Amino acid sequence: MTDCIFCKIVAGEIPADKVYEDEDFLAFLDIHPINLGHTLLIPKKHYENLFDLPSDLLEKIGPKIQLIARAVLVGAGADALNLGMNNGASAGQLVGHAHLHLIPRFDDDGLQHWSAKEFSAEIFKETAEKIKKGL
Amino acid sequence: MTDCIFCKIVAGEIPADKVYEDEDFLAFLDIHPINLGHTLLIPKKHYENLFDLPSDLLEKIGPKIQLIARAVLVGAGADALNLGMNNGASAGQLVGHAHLHLIPRFDDDGLQHWSAKEFSAEIFKETAEKIKKGL
Repeated sequence: MTDCIFCKIVAGEIPADKVYEDEDFLAFLDIHPINLGHTLLIPKKHYENLFDLPSDLLEKIGPKIQLIARAVLVGAGADALNLGMNNGASAGQLVGHAHLHLIPRFDDDGLQHWSAKEFSAEIFKETAEKIKKGL
Repeated sequence: MTDCIFCKIVAGEIPADKVYEDEDFLAFLDIHPINLGHTLLIPKKHYENLFDLPSDLLEKIGPKIQLIARAVLVGAGADALNLGMNNGASAGQLVGHAHLHLIPRFDDDGLQHWSAKEFSAEIFKETAEKIKKGL
Protein backbone atom coordinates (compact mmCIF):
# COMPACT_ATOMS: atom_id res chain seq x y z
CA MET A 1 0.00 0.00 0.00
CA THR A 2 1.37 3.37 -1.00
CA ASP A 3 0.62 5.11 2.29
CA CYS A 4 1.82 2.31 4.59
CA ILE A 5 5.02 3.05 6.54
CA PHE A 6 5.94 -0.66 6.80
CA CYS A 7 5.44 -1.19 3.06
CA LYS A 8 7.84 1.74 2.58
CA ILE A 9 10.40 0.07 4.85
CA VAL A 10 10.01 -3.16 2.82
CA ALA A 11 10.52 -1.17 -0.39
CA GLY A 12 13.61 0.55 1.06
CA GLU A 13 11.99 3.97 0.82
CA ILE A 14 12.28 4.51 4.59
CA PRO A 15 15.38 3.39 6.52
CA ALA A 16 15.17 0.82 9.30
CA ASP A 17 17.58 -1.16 11.47
CA LYS A 18 16.90 -4.49 9.76
CA VAL A 19 17.88 -7.71 11.50
CA TYR A 20 16.39 -10.38 9.20
CA GLU A 21 15.00 -10.61 5.70
CA ASP A 22 13.83 -13.41 3.41
CA GLU A 23 11.36 -13.80 0.56
CA ASP A 24 8.31 -13.47 2.78
CA PHE A 25 9.30 -11.66 5.97
CA LEU A 26 11.27 -8.71 7.27
CA ALA A 27 12.37 -8.03 10.86
CA PHE A 28 13.67 -4.68 12.09
CA LEU A 29 13.99 -2.74 15.33
CA ASP A 30 10.88 -0.93 16.55
CA ILE A 31 11.71 2.79 16.62
CA HIS A 32 9.59 3.07 19.78
CA PRO A 33 11.10 0.20 21.80
CA ILE A 34 9.67 -1.01 25.11
CA ASN A 35 13.17 -2.32 25.82
CA LEU A 36 16.36 -2.12 23.78
CA GLY A 37 16.25 -4.82 21.09
CA HIS A 38 12.44 -4.67 20.65
CA THR A 39 12.01 -6.11 17.16
CA LEU A 40 9.10 -6.20 14.73
CA LEU A 41 8.51 -9.16 12.40
CA ILE A 42 6.27 -8.39 9.42
CA PRO A 43 5.10 -10.09 6.23
CA LYS A 44 6.54 -8.18 3.28
CA LYS A 45 3.19 -8.17 1.53
CA HIS A 46 0.58 -5.90 3.04
CA TYR A 47 -1.97 -7.62 5.28
CA GLU A 48 -3.76 -5.69 7.97
CA ASN A 49 -3.43 -8.11 10.88
CA LEU A 50 -3.67 -11.73 12.07
CA PHE A 51 -7.19 -12.14 10.75
CA ASP A 52 -6.29 -11.71 7.09
CA LEU A 53 -2.89 -13.44 6.90
CA PRO A 54 -3.04 -16.25 4.28
CA SER A 55 -2.45 -19.82 5.42
CA ASP A 56 0.88 -20.24 3.62
CA LEU A 57 2.35 -17.32 5.56
CA LEU A 58 0.80 -18.56 8.80
CA GLU A 59 2.55 -21.91 8.31
CA LYS A 60 5.88 -20.22 7.58
CA ILE A 61 5.80 -17.60 10.32
CA GLY A 62 6.02 -19.91 13.36
CA PRO A 63 9.59 -21.11 12.73
CA LYS A 64 10.64 -17.53 11.82
CA ILE A 65 9.29 -16.22 15.11
CA GLN A 66 11.41 -18.74 17.01
CA LEU A 67 14.51 -18.01 14.92
CA ILE A 68 14.29 -14.26 15.43
CA ALA A 69 13.17 -14.49 19.05
CA ARG A 70 16.31 -16.51 19.88
CA ALA A 71 18.48 -13.92 18.16
CA VAL A 72 16.72 -11.06 19.97
CA LEU A 73 17.15 -12.81 23.33
CA VAL A 74 20.86 -13.40 22.78
CA GLY A 75 21.58 -10.12 21.00
CA ALA A 76 19.85 -8.03 23.65
CA GLY A 77 21.37 -10.09 26.48
CA ALA A 78 17.85 -10.53 27.81
CA ASP A 79 16.47 -12.84 30.50
CA ALA A 80 13.17 -13.57 28.75
CA LEU A 81 10.99 -12.44 25.87
CA ASN A 82 7.42 -11.36 25.22
CA LEU A 83 5.80 -12.10 21.91
CA GLY A 84 2.88 -9.83 21.11
CA MET A 85 0.57 -8.98 18.27
CA ASN A 86 -2.04 -6.23 18.47
CA ASN A 87 -4.86 -6.90 16.04
CA GLY A 88 -7.13 -3.92 15.60
CA ALA A 89 -6.97 -0.35 16.87
CA SER A 90 -8.82 -1.28 20.08
CA ALA A 91 -5.99 -3.75 20.80
CA GLY A 92 -3.33 -1.05 20.45
CA GLN A 93 -2.44 -1.66 16.78
CA LEU A 94 -0.91 1.62 15.61
CA VAL A 95 0.27 0.66 12.11
CA GLY A 96 -2.25 -1.14 9.88
CA HIS A 97 0.26 -3.66 8.49
CA ALA A 98 0.41 -6.96 10.38
CA HIS A 99 3.39 -7.04 12.78
CA LEU A 100 4.59 -9.15 15.67
CA HIS A 101 6.41 -7.57 18.61
CA LEU A 102 9.41 -9.45 20.01
CA ILE A 103 10.23 -7.69 23.26
CA PRO A 104 13.33 -8.63 25.25
CA ARG A 105 12.70 -8.64 28.97
CA PHE A 106 15.00 -8.15 31.93
CA ASP A 107 14.57 -9.23 35.55
CA ASP A 108 14.61 -5.62 36.73
CA ASP A 109 12.75 -3.84 33.91
CA GLY A 110 9.71 -3.15 36.07
CA LEU A 111 7.12 -3.71 33.31
CA GLN A 112 3.75 -4.66 34.76
CA HIS A 113 1.26 -7.11 33.24
CA TRP A 114 -2.50 -6.55 33.06
CA SER A 115 -4.62 -7.67 36.00
CA ALA A 116 -7.21 -10.41 35.81
CA LYS A 117 -10.96 -9.91 36.16
CA GLU A 118 -13.39 -12.21 37.99
CA PHE A 119 -16.41 -13.97 36.49
CA SER A 120 -18.69 -16.77 37.66
CA ALA A 121 -18.28 -20.41 36.55
CA GLU A 122 -21.59 -20.01 34.69
CA ILE A 123 -20.31 -17.02 32.68
CA PHE A 124 -17.09 -18.95 31.85
CA LYS A 125 -19.13 -21.89 30.55
CA GLU A 126 -21.43 -19.68 28.45
CA THR A 127 -18.43 -17.85 26.97
CA ALA A 128 -16.66 -21.08 26.05
CA GLU A 129 -19.82 -22.21 24.21
CA LYS A 130 -20.00 -18.91 22.30
CA ILE A 131 -16.35 -19.26 21.24
CA LYS A 132 -16.86 -22.87 20.13
CA LYS A 133 -19.70 -21.72 17.87
CA GLY A 134 -17.28 -19.33 16.16
CA LEU A 135 -14.85 -22.09 15.16
CA MET B 1 5.13 -33.56 33.25
CA THR B 2 3.46 -34.90 36.38
CA ASP B 3 3.50 -31.59 38.28
CA CYS B 4 2.37 -29.36 35.38
CA ILE B 5 -1.14 -27.92 35.68
CA PHE B 6 -1.57 -27.63 31.90
CA CYS B 7 -0.46 -31.26 31.37
CA LYS B 8 -3.14 -32.19 33.92
CA ILE B 9 -5.76 -30.24 31.93
CA VAL B 10 -4.64 -32.07 28.75
CA ALA B 11 -4.96 -35.39 30.58
CA GLY B 12 -8.43 -34.45 31.88
CA GLU B 13 -7.26 -34.61 35.49
CA ILE B 14 -8.17 -30.94 36.06
CA PRO B 15 -11.33 -29.42 34.54
CA ALA B 16 -11.18 -26.52 32.09
CA ASP B 17 -13.57 -24.65 29.82
CA LYS B 18 -12.20 -26.10 26.59
CA VAL B 19 -12.96 -24.38 23.29
CA TYR B 20 -10.79 -26.34 20.83
CA GLU B 21 -8.89 -29.60 20.72
CA ASP B 22 -7.04 -31.58 18.08
CA GLU B 23 -4.15 -34.04 17.98
CA ASP B 24 -1.51 -31.43 18.79
CA PHE B 25 -3.21 -28.49 20.51
CA LEU B 26 -5.73 -27.59 23.16
CA ALA B 27 -7.43 -24.24 23.76
CA PHE B 28 -9.34 -23.33 26.92
CA LEU B 29 -10.40 -20.26 28.87
CA ASP B 30 -7.77 -18.68 31.13
CA ILE B 31 -9.11 -18.89 34.70
CA HIS B 32 -7.53 -15.47 35.34
CA PRO B 33 -8.90 -13.56 32.33
CA ILE B 34 -7.80 -10.04 31.39
CA ASN B 35 -11.16 -9.77 29.59
CA LEU B 36 -14.02 -12.25 29.29
CA GLY B 37 -13.14 -14.78 26.58
CA HIS B 38 -9.38 -14.69 27.29
CA THR B 39 -8.25 -18.02 25.85
CA LEU B 40 -5.03 -20.02 26.12
CA LEU B 41 -3.71 -22.11 23.24
CA ILE B 42 -1.19 -24.77 24.26
CA PRO B 43 0.65 -27.70 22.68
CA LYS B 44 -0.61 -30.90 24.30
CA LYS B 45 2.91 -32.16 24.74
CA HIS B 46 4.97 -30.41 27.40
CA TYR B 47 7.38 -27.76 26.12
CA GLU B 48 8.47 -24.93 28.34
CA ASN B 49 8.07 -22.00 25.96
CA LEU B 50 8.63 -20.64 22.44
CA PHE B 51 12.33 -21.44 22.52
CA ASP B 52 11.90 -25.20 22.74
CA LEU B 53 8.85 -25.79 20.52
CA PRO B 54 9.77 -28.24 17.72
CA SER B 55 9.53 -27.04 14.11
CA ASP B 56 6.58 -29.28 13.18
CA LEU B 57 4.45 -27.68 15.90
CA LEU B 58 5.68 -24.20 14.97
CA GLU B 59 4.51 -24.80 11.40
CA LYS B 60 1.13 -26.06 12.57
CA ILE B 61 0.43 -23.44 15.23
CA GLY B 62 0.11 -20.36 12.97
CA PRO B 63 -3.14 -21.44 11.27
CA LYS B 64 -4.53 -22.64 14.63
CA ILE B 65 -3.86 -19.25 16.20
CA GLN B 66 -5.87 -17.56 13.43
CA LEU B 67 -8.71 -20.09 13.66
CA ILE B 68 -9.09 -19.72 17.41
CA ALA B 69 -8.47 -15.95 17.43
CA ARG B 70 -11.39 -15.49 15.00
CA ALA B 71 -13.64 -17.62 17.21
CA VAL B 72 -12.57 -15.70 20.34
CA LEU B 73 -13.24 -12.36 18.61
CA VAL B 74 -16.71 -13.39 17.48
CA GLY B 75 -17.61 -15.40 20.59
CA ALA B 76 -16.58 -12.61 22.95
CA GLY B 77 -18.21 -9.94 20.75
CA ALA B 78 -14.88 -8.11 20.86
CA ASP B 79 -13.60 -5.16 18.82
CA ALA B 80 -10.02 -6.41 18.54
CA LEU B 81 -7.62 -9.01 19.92
CA ASN B 82 -4.18 -9.19 21.48
CA LEU B 83 -2.01 -12.21 20.91
CA GLY B 84 0.65 -12.68 23.56
CA MET B 85 3.20 -15.22 24.67
CA ASN B 86 5.34 -14.76 27.77
CA ASN B 87 8.54 -16.74 27.47
CA GLY B 88 10.44 -16.98 30.73
CA ALA B 89 9.59 -15.90 34.28
CA SER B 90 11.05 -12.43 33.68
CA ALA B 91 8.53 -12.00 30.84
CA GLY B 92 5.60 -12.84 33.12
CA GLN B 93 5.34 -16.56 32.32
CA LEU B 94 3.55 -18.07 35.33
CA VAL B 95 3.03 -21.65 34.12
CA GLY B 96 6.08 -23.43 32.66
CA HIS B 97 4.17 -25.07 29.78
CA ALA B 98 4.21 -23.06 26.52
CA HIS B 99 0.96 -21.11 26.07
CA LEU B 100 -0.34 -18.33 23.88
CA HIS B 101 -2.77 -15.75 25.24
CA LEU B 102 -5.65 -14.70 22.99
CA ILE B 103 -7.17 -11.68 24.68
CA PRO B 104 -10.36 -10.11 23.32
CA ARG B 105 -10.27 -6.32 23.50
CA PHE B 106 -13.02 -3.74 23.70
CA ASP B 107 -12.97 -0.05 22.77
CA ASP B 108 -13.67 0.97 26.34
CA ASP B 109 -11.69 -1.65 28.32
CA GLY B 110 -9.12 0.89 29.49
CA LEU B 111 -6.12 -1.45 29.27
CA GLN B 112 -2.90 0.49 28.83
CA HIS B 113 0.10 -0.56 26.74
CA TRP B 114 3.73 -0.24 27.84
CA SER B 115 5.53 3.01 27.09
CA ALA B 116 8.49 3.30 24.75
CA LYS B 117 12.04 4.15 25.78
CA GLU B 118 14.48 6.41 23.87
CA PHE B 119 17.90 5.40 22.54
CA SER B 120 20.38 6.99 20.14
CA ALA B 121 20.63 5.99 16.47
CA GLU B 122 24.08 4.58 17.30
CA ILE B 123 22.70 2.30 20.01
CA PHE B 124 19.94 1.11 17.64
CA LYS B 125 22.52 0.23 15.01
CA GLU B 126 24.77 -1.63 17.47
CA THR B 127 21.80 -3.58 18.82
CA ALA B 128 20.64 -4.61 15.34
CA GLU B 129 24.17 -5.93 14.65
CA LYS B 130 24.15 -7.93 17.88
CA ILE B 131 20.78 -9.48 16.99
CA LYS B 132 21.95 -10.37 13.47
CA LYS B 133 24.89 -12.25 14.96
CA GLY B 134 22.44 -14.38 16.95
CA LEU B 135 20.59 -15.60 13.85
